[in-house]
Amino acid sequence: MSKTIGVIGGGQLARMMITPAQELGLAIKVLAENEGSSAMLAATSVGDYTDYETVRRFAERVDVITFDHEHVPLNILEKLEAEGFNVQPSSSALRFAQNKLAMRQKLSELGLPVPDWAEVNSSVDLQTFLDKHNGVAVLKTPTGGYDGKGVKIVRSVEDASDWLAKGQPLLVEEKVDFVRELAQLSARNVSGDWSSWQVVQTIQVDGVCSEVLSPAPHADITSAAIIAKRIAEGLGVTGVLAVEMFETQDGKLLINELAMRPHNSGHFSIEGSTTSQFEQHIRAVADLPLGDTAPTTAFSVMLNLLGVDDVNTFVEHYPEALKVQGAHIHTYGKSARKGRKMGHITAVSNSSIDEARLIALKAKEALHA
Amino acid sequence: MSKTIGVIGGGQLARMMITPAQELGLAIKVLAENEGSSAMLAATSVGDYTDYETVRRFAERVDVITFDHEHVPLNILEKLEAEGFNVQPSSSALRFAQNKLAMRQKLSELGLPVPDWAEVNSSVDLQTFLDKHNGVAVLKTPTGGYDGKGVKIVRSVEDASDWLAKGQPLLVEEKVDFVRELAQLSARNVSGDWSSWQVVQTIQVDGVCSEVLSPAPHADITSAAIIAKRIAEGLGVTGVLAVEMFETQDGKLLINELAMRPHNSGHFSIEGSTTSQFEQHIRAVADLPLGDTAPTTAFSVMLNLLGVDDVNTFVEHYPEALKVQGAHIHTYGKSARKGRKMGHITAVSNSSIDEARLIALKAKEALHA
Repeated sequence: MSKTIGVIGGGQLARMMITPAQELGLAIKVLAENEGSSAMLAATSVGDYTDYETVRRFAERVDVITFDHEHVPLNILEKLEAEGFNVQPSSSALRFAQNKLAMRQKLSELGLPVPDWAEVNSSVDLQTFLDKHNGVAVLKTPTGGYDGKGVKIVRSVEDASDWLAKGQPLLVEEKVDFVRELAQLSARNVSGDWSSWQVVQTIQVDGVCSEVLSPAPHADITSAAIIAKRIAEGLGVTGVLAVEMFETQDGKLLINELAMRPHNSGHFSIEGSTTSQFEQHIRAVADLPLGDTAPTTAFSVMLNLLGVDDVNTFVEHYPEALKVQGAHIHTYGKSARKGRKMGHITAVSNSSIDEARLIALKAKEALHA
Repeated sequence: MSKTIGVIGGGQLARMMITPAQELGLAIKVLAENEGSSAMLAATSVGDYTDYETVRRFAERVDVITFDHEHVPLNILEKLEAEGFNVQPSSSALRFAQNKLAMRQKLSELGLPVPDWAEVNSSVDLQTFLDKHNGVAVLKTPTGGYDGKGVKIVRSVEDASDWLAKGQPLLVEEKVDFVRELAQLSARNVSGDWSSWQVVQTIQVDGVCSEVLSPAPHADITSAAIIAKRIAEGLGVTGVLAVEMFETQDGKLLINELAMRPHNSGHFSIEGSTTSQFEQHIRAVADLPLGDTAPTTAFSVMLNLLGVDDVNTFVEHYPEALKVQGAHIHTYGKSARKGRKMGHITAVSNSSIDEARLIALKAKEALHA
């Protein structure tokens, strides 16, 4: 009998896990938020992932629980685990992806490179940190933030008064003067085998990933992989782990964010690697041997397709865009909305990163994106 | 609004069309024969494809009808077309894939190279043909044959007495003394654009495809592509066209069989080509621009996974087989049955066809196949 993978969350990440799961001889079921979700094809249940009974009923029908996002409340996962359900990554790892204060605390304990940080419970805490860092800092809500939400730059206590008023602990970090951002994708299976892809450069616009260059140009950064491995093992991560990092003027790496699931910075791997991050995630959580992560092409560039208005779903422009040879267009079956992550393009080249980028941009233009 | 592709037949070919259709921004529905079909994931209807009302109800819910197999009765397709439904390939092309007598007739009219052949309606017809061909010939039922079924070698009228007794016209062909078999995959979209992959060598065992080498070694055979193009255009084929050919001692090509759908000989293209035959078929029938068919690797070898008994579904051996780096294992979600096409393995190499073959064989052994 083949195992069934259950994915909580019906977004594009779940959508892109469907085929690899099938190809690995597994069944896959998705608990989606609503009817029109990206992973509709395998969405066998629609319901609220913050409701214990809903999640439990879903868990009973699958062999492994994994995730499209990290928003399932920790106490629900802990209860499932206590009842013997197989949750990958486990709640003990996932808590560090859910809570940035817990993450900073743990990484510091492990001696891993992080920006200077502090927990903020009052305006005094914040002022103390600002005084130590030339009057500027990055303030974050420990939970629930994504794509630039839950993050702001503050130069005074007044800048933070609305967040401080909520009475919840906040995370404050030094504003790192980085030259660029990198991401190290890797995966660890339940048995503990670990494997990484080559490090990539990510380009963010307004806090949202816009572009990924693979490999990161002029990067000789085995240290990125070493950091990722120490995190994966130190935190007991299973499945794909994305480590977003800052590279500083002097070539130092500082860990920014963690995600314990396939990640936007790894979409290039669908075409650019022998094993995609989606296949690897399924292998890892099902405790199958990890696949080969060797690149299939010298260079690849991924561009996100963000919604431009309430009309253009990009699909209507496929007849033009598909003429651009070398560009691989992916859309997620979403309705149009300005700023929404609706798809991505990956272009590959064996000549140069610039060629790959040019091909991707041509396809993007043809999509009116 | 995105178009919906409707596939009649729920086998592995439909299964492998699901993801490409989604990636092309299309919806896909499948009319499957039964509940446990390979393409279950998108099987929105289960019913009898020889029943006009069943097929018509399915057609009403999609924008383009296409096929997993060529067994839908021609009169059903003609009726659908008369009512304005969009059938790709059309009945006027598909009749040549359904009826081998019609196919031989048409290819001869087009002046394309075929083995010597005749229509047989009596034992006298057959004896005349045998007398002309040293007393040996290949007898075929014009319709319904596949994987070696509906084909037999005859040396006397007696060898054919059971088939002759049925009173249906038969096709008789010279037994070609070939050195090997080749297959030329190509695709033509509704607008008439045409594109081919490199020609492959196929190795058959007991009339069933066992192995495909891509590209066909030592082949300098642009004539294969020219033949395929003339067939696609001459017969008005849309979608993928597979032309199976014999290569004779003196390097001549003779057309054996045609299939107007993705074909076993093209499975290598999932990993071995920029655009897979499944994606290309969807592009072609949806009248989108055709994709790039350049190889992604110098060599690839595809081995079929035929059932070995009623127990081994191969999936249970994945933990071992997935350790074989470079082998891509595909299974079709079928229950185990001896001789059944249950999956395939494609291995790629940039060094040699022998290396690719060795990797594929290793994975096959690990699956106990």
